[in-house]
Amino acid sequence: MSSSFGEKVKIMIFGQSHSEAIGVVIDGLPVGEEIDLEAVRKFMERRAPGRNAYSTPRKEADLPRVVSGLFEGKTCGAPICAVIENTNTRSKDYDKLKDLPRPGHADFTAWVKYKGANDHRGGGHFSGRLTAPLCFAGAVCMQILERRGIHIGAHILSIKGVQDTPFDAVAVDADTLKAVTEKVFPVQNDAAGEEMQATIAAAKENADSVGGVIECAVVGLPVGVGEPMFDGLESRLAAAIYAIPAVKGVEFGEGFGVAALFGSENNDNFTYQADGTVRTTTNHHGGSLGGISSGMPLVLRAAFKPTPSIGQTQDTISISKGENDTLAIVGRHDPCIVPRAVPCVEAAAAVALLDLICRMEQ
Amino acid sequence: MSSSFGEKVKIMIFGQSHSEAIGVVIDGLPVGEEIDLEAVRKFMERRAPGRNAYSTPRKEADLPRVVSGLFEGKTCGAPICAVIENTNTRSKDYDKLKDLPRPGHADFTAWVKYKGANDHRGGGHFSGRLTAPLCFAGAVCMQILERRGIHIGAHILSIKGVQDTPFDAVAVDADTLKAVTEKVFPVQNDAAGEEMQATIAAAKENADSVGGVIECAVVGLPVGVGEPMFDGLESRLAAAIYAIPAVKGVEFGEGFGVAALFGSENNDNFTYQADGTVRTTTNHHGGSLGGISSGMPLVLRAAFKPTPSIGQTQDTISISKGENDTLAIVGRHDPCIVPRAVPCVEAAAAVALLDLICRMEQ
Amino acid sequence: MSSSFGEKVKIMIFGQSHSEAIGVVIDGLPVGEEIDLEAVRKFMERRAPGRNAYSTPRKEADLPRVVSGLFEGKTCGAPICAVIENTNTRSKDYDKLKDLPRPGHADFTAWVKYKGANDHRGGGHFSGRLTAPLCFAGAVCMQILERRGIHIGAHILSIKGVQDTPFDAVAVDADTLKAVTEKVFPVQNDAAGEEMQATIAAAKENADSVGGVIECAVVGLPVGVGEPMFDGLESRLAAAIYAIPAVKGVEFGEGFGVAALFGSENNDNFTYQADGTVRTTTNHHGGSLGGISSGMPLVLRAAFKPTPSIGQTQDTISISKGENDTLAIVGRHDPCIVPRAVPCVEAAAAVALLDLICRMEQ
Amino acid sequence: MSSSFGEKVKIMIFGQSHSEAIGVVIDGLPVGEEIDLEAVRKFMERRAPGRNAYSTPRKEADLPRVVSGLFEGKTCGAPICAVIENTNTRSKDYDKLKDLPRPGHADFTAWVKYKGANDHRGGGHFSGRLTAPLCFAGAVCMQILERRGIHIGAHILSIKGVQDTPFDAVAVDADTLKAVTEKVFPVQNDAAGEEMQATIAAAKENADSVGGVIECAVVGLPVGVGEPMFDGLESRLAAAIYAIPAVKGVEFGEGFGVAALFGSENNDNFTYQADGTVRTTTNHHGGSLGGISSGMPLVLRAAFKPTPSIGQTQDTISISKGENDTLAIVGRHDPCIVPRAVPCVEAAAAVALLDLICRMEQ
Repeated sequence: MSSSFGEKVKIMIFGQSHSEAIGVVIDGLPVGEEIDLEAVRKFMERRAPGRNAYSTPRKEADLPRVVSGLFEGKTCGAPICAVIENTNTRSKDYDKLKDLPRPGHADFTAWVKYKGANDHRGGGHFSGRLTAPLCFAGAVCMQILERRGIHIGAHILSIKGVQDTPFDAVAVDADTLKAVTEKVFPVQNDAAGEEMQATIAAAKENADSVGGVIECAVVGLPVGVGEPMFDGLESRLAAAIYAIPAVKGVEFGEGFGVAALFGSENNDNFTYQADGTVRTTTNHHGGSLGGISSGMPLVLRAAFKPTPSIGQTQDTISISKGENDTLAIVGRHDPCIVPRAVPCVEAAAAVALLDLICRMEQ
Repeated sequence: MSSSFGEKVKIMIFGQSHSEAIGVVIDGLPVGEEIDLEAVRKFMERRAPGRNAYSTPRKEADLPRVVSGLFEGKTCGAPICAVIENTNTRSKDYDKLKDLPRPGHADFTAWVKYKGANDHRGGGHFSGRLTAPLCFAGAVCMQILERRGIHIGAHILSIKGVQDTPFDAVAVDADTLKAVTEKVFPVQNDAAGEEMQATIAAAKENADSVGGVIECAVVGLPVGVGEPMFDGLESRLAAAIYAIPAVKGVEFGEGFGVAALFGSENNDNFTYQADGTVRTTTNHHGGSLGGISSGMPLVLRAAFKPTPSIGQTQDTISISKGENDTLAIVGRHDPCIVPRAVPCVEAAAAVALLDLICRMEQ
Repeated sequence: MSSSFGEKVKIMIFGQSHSEAIGVVIDGLPVGEEIDLEAVRKFMERRAPGRNAYSTPRKEADLPRVVSGLFEGKTCGAPICAVIENTNTRSKDYDKLKDLPRPGHADFTAWVKYKGANDHRGGGHFSGRLTAPLCFAGAVCMQILERRGIHIGAHILSIKGVQDTPFDAVAVDADTLKAVTEKVFPVQNDAAGEEMQATIAAAKENADSVGGVIECAVVGLPVGVGEPMFDGLESRLAAAIYAIPAVKGVEFGEGFGVAALFGSENNDNFTYQADGTVRTTTNHHGGSLGGISSGMPLVLRAAFKPTPSIGQTQDTISISKGENDTLAIVGRHDPCIVPRAVPCVEAAAAVALLDLICRMEQ
Repeated sequence: MSSSFGEKVKIMIFGQSHSEAIGVVIDGLPVGEEIDLEAVRKFMERRAPGRNAYSTPRKEADLPRVVSGLFEGKTCGAPICAVIENTNTRSKDYDKLKDLPRPGHADFTAWVKYKGANDHRGGGHFSGRLTAPLCFAGAVCMQILERRGIHIGAHILSIKGVQDTPFDAVAVDADTLKAVTEKVFPVQNDAAGEEMQATIAAAKENADSVGGVIECAVVGLPVGVGEPMFDGLESRLAAAIYAIPAVKGVEFGEGFGVAALFGSENNDNFTYQADGTVRTTTNHHGGSLGGISSGMPLVLRAAFKPTPSIGQTQDTISISKGENDTLAIVGRHDPCIVPRAVPCVEAAAAVALLDLICRMEQ
């Protein structure tokens, strides 16, 4: 098992979908940093279920209780532990799943890996619910980053072919990020957003689900963040983002698009600004050169698969009978996880970046 | 700095493009494993420069000298250290680059990060040359994996729009992998390969470069490899692969394609085989569910940007003058790094997978 | 900060003496292991304060609430998190200490390290209270070790010159350990125990405190536990035990006594037993050769300094006034921490050993 | 296996006594630090064998070749790799030991652990020869520490009962350390040193060996070095020092002596100096409170067992015959390892301390 991440700023996430509680311990944060817990809770609400018509009706309090690590409202050098109680859990919904692994879920792989000892209820430790403590950790890290002038924001770039306006990789700034992340449905082009929501509603109507792509940008990063080779920006950010269930692709800057470009097109020339700082005129590299921040906006995209829990009848196996069987999932589930995943991507990025920043040379 | 990777099987890569030597230490390997050094060298040759018309004319001996860790040809519990001498180095080629950071390279970011103390010659520690020790480590790990029935192979999936036949994600097997990796130009469709090589040659003609996509498959993985959350298969493999210079995207299974599918299309149903094993009928998930291997072939793709070193004149800055300047790179460089990167992707995957396998429950 | 330990079995301890709660997350435990929480609580009671006349009158419920990681009473692959509420906290007792660092405590060093942002109340994260979650983690690990035939037990070897009978390093067995650890005052020679308690009572009478030595033995360890060099048995056990506040010395086998022996005296000869196993006829090496377990009982000793909190008036500084001052500590404190530290040493050993055992070759 | 150490400054040691070479990789060093390799070699000479009558006649060149990580004489951000060739190796001396494990050595434990695959020649990876790369790493770290005003020095405190004058824990300074470490036989009291050497010579005469205690002090440490709990000064220093073969005890400040003191005696009162700095009037705590440096000299002692290789006939087992046997070791060996271990203790302390210092808050 490894539900921990980070070298200087370390987080360890605990809990299962239906255990008594879930939560996170954060060790190694800079000291004396004021943490606004009300702002943390507001950030976590962006991930919370039940905010609109198409998302799962399960209501989570999701109010984290910070039991350690803050003293007079500030980080004090001791690890922060936040505990989120699991209250509204209907374990019976999942009884059948012990026998019939859900296609697209970790039920089968976890069952084999742990020789049947895993907590299968609601996906156990593999549940998307575990992104709640990730969001807590991300929100804490984000406040510390913002105090250093670093801002992170993400939006829905596409859902089942419906495209939002991408960020301008050169010009995106803190205001752009703030504007889009404050929306209930975080897109830049609201008309596209309406169409996305209609697409999701139609899928739901059909007992089906859809996936999408989230684009995330980080502005204000100083030059020099990221370590060479295995701890470069891309390695660390991808490792953190792939911890979010359902992510199947992560790309930076031009991403897979680089395969269609000439070097003369893809290279970003350096140029001095009037104020003496160095920038590139274009930003195909997405803010990272050699795994190290260039001072340009960091731009990445993550692809999310359609929610595997769908109401349609699917083929699967019956472990108890040792033969093929079918399954129709009746529990609560989102027809599209993408909207709720937007803050999760920001949180994963925040955790990875603060760790790298705190690792830098004194 | 962090040029180390792995928890149970740990590697640490050292060296700069023009230091006396480069190399790698590998700690934590299973003990008593015979290592065929001739096979290792043969694997490394696939990465070596100068194998054909379009690749850099720099000849590297690249013969690793194993100075420790093997006893009577077998792993003995002590770390393996392999040293590769840097012989054919023309440092003078790079003198100018100390002042004029090359667009698309880490010259500028490393210079700022290390306050000018970095070894700029040939990209220093950020050089693609450092993938030679990665290939050494990967080749060693691969032999141990193969003894456990696990086979890794990759091919060029596309170069500047020219597409090879992708792997059949359900049917790909060890023979398929062996066949394609034994080719000098590793594609499944040789006609596409011819076209790719013509594309590369044309770019070279133009003092330009092109990028591409590499597809890698792993067959024979047992169910259960991968740890939850931050150490899932995707997180670990992406972290390792992003350590290869020029990678800007990594995706698994259907990858970014999931964004266009319904859940009912993307889910892979489980079914019992005649021999009692469980497989999925399709493989959109690419062999990983919840970050844990499903027993299906693991399929991933990595996007490589066009070689940033191009002969055309480019805009950049002069650090010494503090003003904008231009640069035409005259040193040796590949017009397309993709063919030589194929074994690097396999090696990164091997290192990450062996570490995860050795971390599994006793 | 680093309140985490372990590579395969990782623990992360959180909390401050007067935060809302303290606790621990344990990741990487073997799966399917039944954990008897009643036995855990019984183990933790051995550390709990207020058990007798001379120990601190602060009553701690110290009932850990396991909020995750167990499913149907067994480890399920997800991290265990145990939360212990801080109930009986009288913060006012410590108000003065923010200004007047207590001699022998971490008040001054923590205040400088964290630039005044540390939680000073009751020693904050440096409080001996943080050994409660360590004992929780140790008790869990110990149950898993015992299932593998490995038993850990410790006793008070000396308090202020009063000596208990040491373990017989060759013959000590599980029964010996069980017998001594079940005692309220864990000594082998009860007469010595009486004298120790009289010594402690006399120190208390005098508003003073005393220290002592704890001896710990581990029996049933297979040959081969421990990794070479920095992760040898001694390195790992010492690192874990030194995490217990007040420890100033850790030695193994003959320990500092080796300095007075000839090699011909100190070497332990190997010999075949009737049953074909190999043992040494003596055990000066204390069960570890080259950092690896030899199959002989592992024997170690830890020296604990006298409780630094004493009622006598002591010289210290006043931070606010910037001048020398005096301090008489009036809060609750043990005149001797050694009796309550006995299970802490066992717990630290258990955590370190289970991690090493789980790291061994498959 | 784990021959690596450190979180921010990481070292990985490789090699066996009779492999082609041994060495070390050091990652994460501060950048731009000038490293005087001549001074490094001079430091390593203090550990080298063959310097006087009583030490092993094996001559080692022990000249490390730095193949990476330095650029124009300074650390450049890339890992340093130093390779030390194994030249004067007589493998035949050790042929018999494959069958007859030497008492007091790791021959038996390594053979069981690695199922016979370990490199037994000269103790393989467990050989004291592996302290040569440790000394290289320590010497590099020490130069960086000295540039920050931190000085480390050790002396022989006792050999078989013959005592040197201990350091004055309050007054010891850089000059004291320099004076004693420059001596060929590093003791403060040269008369005691003569007696120690006579003791060693007598043991040698008798085909026997003796052990001793090394005392090490660190001066100039700022307040605040060390992380709480498992990464406190004591935990980290002990873990590093126990990696040196033959160490069986490590203690700090008053060490095991604390068990005989009252709290009122052992506590060190704080007091303002004329220059406004805070010191303690005594230094029983040995420079560490709560695992964090107090600004007072750090004082520790390590106990070394007598060299297990002795010429006398000893009882052991014959693995091939499966019965008891005897062994008389004829190879080269020191009758007392302590004098050569003095720089090893300093080196281990340097590596552990630089890592902790580089982990501190920016």
